[in-house]
Amino acid sequence: MLLTCYSLSQIDHFGFLQDGTFKQRYLVADDHWQHPDGPILFYTGNEGDITWFCNNTGFMWEVAEQLGAMLVFAEHRYYGESLPFGQDSYSDVKHLNYLTSEQALADFAVLIQNIKTIVPGAQNSPVIAIGGSYGGMLSAWFRMKYPNIVVGALAASAPIWQFPDMVPCGDFYKIVTQDFAKSGKNCDANIRRSWKAINNVSSSASGLQWLSEEFSLCSPLKNKNDAVSFKSWLQETWVNLAMVDYPYEANFLQPLPRWPIQVVCKYLGFDSTVSDEQLLHGVAQAAKVYYNYTGNAPCLNTSQTATSSLGALGWFFQACTEMVMPMCTDGVQDMFEPEEWSLQALSDECNSVFGVRPRADWAGTVYGGKKIGSHSNIIFSNGGLDPWSAGGVTANISQSLVSIMIPDGAHHLDLRYSNKLDPPSVRAARALELKYFQKWIRQCTYRSLRRKFWH
Amino acid sequence: MLLTCYSLSQIDHFGFLQDGTFKQRYLVADDHWQHPDGPILFYTGNEGDITWFCNNTGFMWEVAEQLGAMLVFAEHRYYGESLPFGQDSYSDVKHLNYLTSEQALADFAVLIQNIKTIVPGAQNSPVIAIGGSYGGMLSAWFRMKYPNIVVGALAASAPIWQFPDMVPCGDFYKIVTQDFAKSGKNCDANIRRSWKAINNVSSSASGLQWLSEEFSLCSPLKNKNDAVSFKSWLQETWVNLAMVDYPYEANFLQPLPRWPIQVVCKYLGFDSTVSDEQLLHGVAQAAKVYYNYTGNAPCLNTSQTATSSLGALGWFFQACTEMVMPMCTDGVQDMFEPEEWSLQALSDECNSVFGVRPRADWAGTVYGGKKIGSHSNIIFSNGGLDPWSAGGVTANISQSLVSIMIPDGAHHLDLRYSNKLDPPSVRAARALELKYFQKWIRQCTYRSLRRKFWH
Repeated sequence: MLLTCYSLSQIDHFGFLQDGTFKQRYLVADDHWQHPDGPILFYTGNEGDITWFCNNTGFMWEVAEQLGAMLVFAEHRYYGESLPFGQDSYSDVKHLNYLTSEQALADFAVLIQNIKTIVPGAQNSPVIAIGGSYGGMLSAWFRMKYPNIVVGALAASAPIWQFPDMVPCGDFYKIVTQDFAKSGKNCDANIRRSWKAINNVSSSASGLQWLSEEFSLCSPLKNKNDAVSFKSWLQETWVNLAMVDYPYEANFLQPLPRWPIQVVCKYLGFDSTVSDEQLLHGVAQAAKVYYNYTGNAPCLNTSQTATSSLGALGWFFQACTEMVMPMCTDGVQDMFEPEEWSLQALSDECNSVFGVRPRADWAGTVYGGKKIGSHSNIIFSNGGLDPWSAGGVTANISQSLVSIMIPDGAHHLDLRYSNKLDPPSVRAARALELKYFQKWIRQCTYRSLRRKFWH
Repeated sequence: MLLTCYSLSQIDHFGFLQDGTFKQRYLVADDHWQHPDGPILFYTGNEGDITWFCNNTGFMWEVAEQLGAMLVFAEHRYYGESLPFGQDSYSDVKHLNYLTSEQALADFAVLIQNIKTIVPGAQNSPVIAIGGSYGGMLSAWFRMKYPNIVVGALAASAPIWQFPDMVPCGDFYKIVTQDFAKSGKNCDANIRRSWKAINNVSSSASGLQWLSEEFSLCSPLKNKNDAVSFKSWLQETWVNLAMVDYPYEANFLQPLPRWPIQVVCKYLGFDSTVSDEQLLHGVAQAAKVYYNYTGNAPCLNTSQTATSSLGALGWFFQACTEMVMPMCTDGVQDMFEPEEWSLQALSDECNSVFGVRPRADWAGTVYGGKKIGSHSNIIFSNGGLDPWSAGGVTANISQSLVSIMIPDGAHHLDLRYSNKLDPPSVRAARALELKYFQKWIRQCTYRSLRRKFWH
């Protein structure tokens, strides 16, 4: 049974002027927990409603039985129901000031200590942090900063190096492009061509109207600016498809068929003689695979590209402060319009929207950047199809900082429920992850016993 | 040559609403630095003026030559000249809000990255953190939290376990008592007896006057409350003597003779037949060893017990927030009036003085408490005479978290200039510390070379 619980946490762990607390939501399942002392698998919640992450992390449910583990899914502050100032949490930068990864990690640490205090038999339970994407970054950082609280971490598809001067800014979109290139003939080439076609067609009012109808847009395009936003929306659509290119029908960001990019690419097989209108008709059909696989969407909404369970505004604030992740395109090694990375442009946008400016170097300073070799017990798993693997740890750093690659996997496929269509690589990854969990738990049990009998 | 420099640091590293910066002072000596790539010894400044710590850390000056090292002494925010809000820094809790150890560690991390950017040849220099007392706690925590920035740390006389539920609260004063017990016959017994004698004598106005004259107090005692403060001042005096019981004439907290407790105890050798007045005459003579060894003090000031280079108010705020260090006395195993540890009393006092309440468990959560075994490259040195060793790490935790005990040492004797009167134990400690520094530097150089040639 899954219980919904709440724990009090300081709004500001790093200052004493703001002494208020807020209710942090967490979900608990203890059906398989062997108490006392059975392990706790702790999901370090990311930028969204924790129930949604809980439902999309079947792996934890499957290994709980094998490990006799309690499951805890902790909601990240400022997302879902865990709002430090209720409805006012997003009202201005004064209220948003406590939305940082450091505060979130401190919440997790305090929550685990609370659980160990209030749950009989949990006091000596080894805790393993698990997370995917930003949640995976948090689980890795949690082990780095609080090794007293968690014995190890699984950081699935966690781009901890997608920060300034750590990886080339173009790798992310290169991987997106490769996914399309290998999913159908001419598929990447036709997307690369589509931007020019949109520019051509959208130069006239009738063209804008035609585009809006072809794409069944809820809000028709009215001018050049709308066309620019429309291209951004399409670009984000292809990125999202690359993230969720799963080998079976699934509903993560959107309900989708198996290997959705292959389905999309069926509409994008034209040779180079195709007209702008023919090409864009194909692109529209392709986009509808992503936005209307169920056939129930009355129109396509360009203001949203993914599930509303994700907190887009909160993540935007985080990207405007600590989570500065440079990305760029050149139109040659990727299928997008060339665009350089500009910290200044981001900074100005952040200043106008929130009144804050990003600190580009801070994440590298506080979380170690490439110099993380002295830490231990972290698994970095990455999917070869996942564009976020560009910023991930894809080679072993040491015997206990290990990389697991899943060549056929998209974004944290390993965290999902197992499926009969799973490729062998993800089955192997999950089996190896379980082995590491068991090893960390054994290490911890051994240390406890030694403390008990030798001292 | 010692240069005084300033570096800009964020006032708030953990939030983006307060985007101001302040000038952090640091001192640099590069006379012996072998550039490029020579090591940097980085003093993590504690609660006071950095020039004072610089002058009292001769060990760094002595090993600089042997290591070809640059010396950096970084001032802790809110002390000395490093005031985030200038003269207003202490005006209220709003301005004091950024006085935390986490902010100080972030300052150090940013400062080192700045130095590596602006000093030619320093980019690949391995940095070793060094500190004593609270500065030693900071150097240990700095290595734990920022192993990307420092390759190792010497935490001298650092009571990282003097926090709730980590060590018995009475150990600190037990060690003070032992120091007096072994420095002269009846010495601890007479101090234990003195509290009652003060109570007796101070019960009358003439007694208060007599006491004030005996002790040459600048402000005569007027009432019972004054007598209570007077006893606290004396208690702190004995504690300070235990901290600075050095084997040679020195001036750390006060100018003092060699083995000052032995000198103090010469005035406290009475047998149990002594009268209250005789006893207190001896105590007054003893106190004057500490407060007037030079013979220049016109009177004794009970509002201060140590050098004004220490920032007492700032430390009080830190003790009222994060640095919750339980201490207690029972009058049996120690020579003081029995007093239990009361978090509530501390909390109420902090609330009335600053409007803040301490978070008793936070330091243990954020800095790991007793569960620090997964970290590496930290030396914990402790003096057997030092009461702060009660909260220190006095046994090896692992091969790279090592304890060095100096049985004849008081408070971080190892950090001081070497002296011909140094006991062999401190000479051996310094030699061993140097060996670890060399090992950490070799490890770092080896890693750099491997990166350069193998990848």
